Amino acid sequence: MAPVTNGRVLFNSYPDGYPEPGKTTVYDTTETIDLDTVPLNGGFLLKTLELSIDPYMRGRMVRPDTPSYSPPWAIGQVIPSNGVGVVLRSENPEAKVGDHISGFLEHKQYAVIKTLEGLRILDNPNKLPWTAFLGVLGMPGKTAFMAWREYSSAKKGETVFVSTGAGPVGSLVIQLAKIDGLKVIASAGSDEKVQFMKDIGADVAFNYKTSKTEEVLAKEGPIDIYWDNVGGETLEAAIDAAKLNARFIECGMISAYNTGYTFPIRNFFQIIAKSLSFHGFIIGRLTAKWDSEFYKTITPLVEGGQIKFKEHIYEGLERDGEGILAVQRGWNRGKAVVHVADE
Amino acid sequence: MAPVTNGRVLFNSYPDGYPEPGKTTVYDTTETIDLDTVPLNGGFLLKTLELSIDPYMRGRMVRPDTPSYSPPWAIGQVIPSNGVGVVLRSENPEAKVGDHISGFLEHKQYAVIKTLEGLRILDNPNKLPWTAFLGVLGMPGKTAFMAWREYSSAKKGETVFVSTGAGPVGSLVIQLAKIDGLKVIASAGSDEKVQFMKDIGADVAFNYKTSKTEEVLAKEGPIDIYWDNVGGETLEAAIDAAKLNARFIECGMISAYNTGYTFPIRNFFQIIAKSLSFHGFIIGRLTAKWDSEFYKTITPLVEGGQIKFKEHIYEGLERDGEGILAVQRGWNRGKAVVHVADE
Repeated sequence: MAPVTNGRVLFNSYPDGYPEPGKTTVYDTTETIDLDTVPLNGGFLLKTLELSIDPYMRGRMVRPDTPSYSPPWAIGQVIPSNGVGVVLRSENPEAKVGDHISGFLEHKQYAVIKTLEGLRILDNPNKLPWTAFLGVLGMPGKTAFMAWREYSSAKKGETVFVSTGAGPVGSLVIQLAKIDGLKVIASAGSDEKVQFMKDIGADVAFNYKTSKTEEVLAKEGPIDIYWDNVGGETLEAAIDAAKLNARFIECGMISAYNTGYTFPIRNFFQIIAKSLSFHGFIIGRLTAKWDSEFYKTITPLVEGGQIKFKEHIYEGLERDGEGILAVQRGWNRGKAVVHVADE
Repeated sequence: MAPVTNGRVLFNSYPDGYPEPGKTTVYDTTETIDLDTVPLNGGFLLKTLELSIDPYMRGRMVRPDTPSYSPPWAIGQVIPSNGVGVVLRSENPEAKVGDHISGFLEHKQYAVIKTLEGLRILDNPNKLPWTAFLGVLGMPGKTAFMAWREYSSAKKGETVFVSTGAGPVGSLVIQLAKIDGLKVIASAGSDEKVQFMKDIGADVAFNYKTSKTEEVLAKEGPIDIYWDNVGGETLEAAIDAAKLNARFIECGMISAYNTGYTFPIRNFFQIIAKSLSFHGFIIGRLTAKWDSEFYKTITPLVEGGQIKFKEHIYEGLERDGEGILAVQRGWNRGKAVVHVADE
């Protein structure tokens, strides 16, 4: 067969504010690949099917000296993220043709990969969509489940506030909190998202663009736990609404990712007055402890439909940059995934 | 014997900024007591010897609706704090004449107390000064020891930064950190305090009024642990100097107690980027777990002189208000104690 284009998404320039499709990242079609003859050198040829777009990616679009748990991308590199692919050819006995493989993949249509190190062959007897392994059964699902178990100290009858409750992490937190018997207050940025949060069990769901967070929390709080995905003024409101000994799970601060400006927290003194704890974390720190319990607990609940999830699919790798921007803007309606190719 | 004056310190008015002796608290001599005949009703008569003055007391001089782990004082009440007294008369078989008793006592010269609930009979075979039971062997010592053990996750070779390192909490933290094999950076507000911090083992000790905290930390850090007694700009500098996965032990925020103003924390985003944890705590939450280990570990080290401590004694209950102000201003040079009476 003749060589085909191997489309790739390259990191092209540091964004000042929000990432710009075609500028921050570019879709590049200069590389070709002959799928029949490309040398495998003992590895395997993977066809990319689905790629995850996540909020944390903004933190990697920074200059090399910026301290962060996720190392900065280099200008010109093919950007990576979690993804799912299928093995087309293989010289590696661990990866058989037709196997579906998940893990950190480059944003390109085809890749020759040496080993399965850091990757995982997916077992999918119930024929869930492969995208589920990037969301509720992937890194966002693990983030929600593992940090909830590790840091929430949730007790039945307590109250939790979840920001970005319609996203892949927040929506699982809402459902885990309901399973644990908590009252759930959840916020998101559109009425459609508010409806989804109600559908998955939130006791109080509101649109933070049309309701004041501090007023909702004053009425429906105080809170024992805050799951923070946004930071800024929402975090301040949560601190004001916190009970003594409340726990703050600091998962993200989307409000600060693109502004070049961190909203100052003016009431942090309450960490002393109310004896609060704040847990920033990286999911890698929790994986060894919670991985098997995650799959054992969450997989059957997803397969049985008791845990719901929502996806927003961007069709084609050329729409990668669009998905990246949408996630930073909150324009996506569900877990953002780029659908690169059918099987 | 004729009745004698029973001097008392009353909470008199809410301070706007710093507490003012004679206004925020007043020394009152209108009450008398007949030590021979005052009815005990099954309790015991305690003569107050020493009373502790602590930074947290400022948090109780607030209006009743202020949320805090330490309940606000009521206008007109006799203020309480940790103290040591000696039993003069007793109808309670658990408290014998001559017993020394420690715990929350009212700031008055004599008190009739019903039961030993919440109090503790002191065992002092090595004749330590009774004041030691208010400092290194009292609440400040427990605060340092228990939170260090619970939250620091200290590992040999790591670096800790301790603010107010010459105070009763900070100075024990410095010594515990050196025992654990850490590099210790410590700050205080006078050259005399800097010398004391060096004497007890701090590797780097500096006067934050004459050296810039961020410059010292840039040179001597980065840090794995920050023991925060001050909050504000010092906390910001510590966040900037933190390594990935650093732990922040949030013990106090003296910078915010008296200004009516909480310095906004502008770089709190780093809790995400650096995966930091912040532990506000109240010592009562840790006592059950660590109490016996505290006494077992610290008492012999204090008795043997391996752990050093420093006190600043205010002579006479009428100087109570002066001590309270000094602790908020940082004017005391060592654990502040009011010496009410000799045995």
